[in-house]
Amino acid sequence: MAYKENYPSVLLSEAVEAISSLPGVGRRSALRLALHLLKQPAENVHHFTEAINHLRDDVCYCRRCRMISDSELCAICADHSRDQRTICVVESVRDVMSIEATGQYHGVYHVLGGIISPIAGVGPSDLTIRELAERVNTLEAPSEAEVILALSGDVEGETTAFYIYRQIEASGIKVSTLARGLGFGDDLEYADALTLGRSLTNRQIFQP
Amino acid sequence: MAYKENYPSVLLSEAVEAISSLPGVGRRSALRLALHLLKQPAENVHHFTEAINHLRDDVCYCRRCRMISDSELCAICADHSRDQRTICVVESVRDVMSIEATGQYHGVYHVLGGIISPIAGVGPSDLTIRELAERVNTLEAPSEAEVILALSGDVEGETTAFYIYRQIEASGIKVSTLARGLGFGDDLEYADALTLGRSLTNRQIFQP
Repeated sequence: MAYKENYPSVLLSEAVEAISSLPGVGRRSALRLALHLLKQPAENVHHFTEAINHLRDDVCYCRRCRMISDSELCAICADHSRDQRTICVVESVRDVMSIEATGQYHGVYHVLGGIISPIAGVGPSDLTIRELAERVNTLEAPSEAEVILALSGDVEGETTAFYIYRQIEASGIKVSTLARGLGFGDDLEYADALTLGRSLTNRQIFQP
Repeated sequence: MAYKENYPSVLLSEAVEAISSLPGVGRRSALRLALHLLKQPAENVHHFTEAINHLRDDVCYCRRCRMISDSELCAICADHSRDQRTICVVESVRDVMSIEATGQYHGVYHVLGGIISPIAGVGPSDLTIRELAERVNTLEAPSEAEVILALSGDVEGETTAFYIYRQIEASGIKVSTLARGLGFGDDLEYADALTLGRSLTNRQIFQP
């Protein structure tokens, strides 16, 4: 912006600076948001900032699955109506929420807190893979339990899936991954070759 | 969102609630931002919230033009190299920044802090129109000074312009408004009838 270095107030430019540090928020929208907040009653703005500080400072994670939680054990891990012997391994908190939103999964989760990515400098030790292995090893009759690797379909995801598999295969636990293929309602014409190829390889018996 | 009432943590849902109260930020992006902030070092998040509180609590406004300012008199009102007898009346702080960005205006400003809008319940007394009138009346030889009404071209803008004109015309000050017409590079074909009509009415002598 032309007046990037030319804000009418240091306070404003610092607020814009801070807000535009958020992902996907440019200087223009940061300015719009700052001026919006400026118009709000002080108590609303304080409520806004307190909610954020409160989240950052006081959030805790489930000791078992590492999901964000208000208690030591998250609602899902504490729920005995859920299959505690089917563990869905995901990259992030958000993935858990997405899967919960489907309402079609009744097992439990394990949140890795990231994905193995040499480029981003994220190694296995930065993730909760060791904790997952311990979890698997403490299961009774692991051969009758299952770990679902619900990771993204890219190289990082596959690398991470393979690494995790190596860590837990000795336990004899069943390890599965998400089905890959055309999305519901996807147009064949626009599907990338890899996806299309996989959905051919993993084709299923037609059940009318 | 399916899990709108179903966040894994009260802290998270409260933060999402707060963030999605921002204009143009839906629950989905609010969640994305909340989880982003959660990943940042605590000091960064505190810096972020402090910058916002600091802006809201400590910002002040120029006593003359009501622009956001760090001092009692803003940089523009304090700048004697600027024409203090040409006052550009705008709706908001943002308009001042936009006009400053053009680098083509060398007068001063008056920020109304809004626009007359019966629907939004904003009346003349909610704006700094009285202060503007006082400012005009304290000018020496107002007939040689000028007020530029740089307000939006919609009904509210025109209503406000007319109201202000009525308040200051007695002073004999010259009152002008922004030229209305086709934007630079606009295609005639796509201009709305009102704009096109105005740019015909206000046509100017061609100066090659």
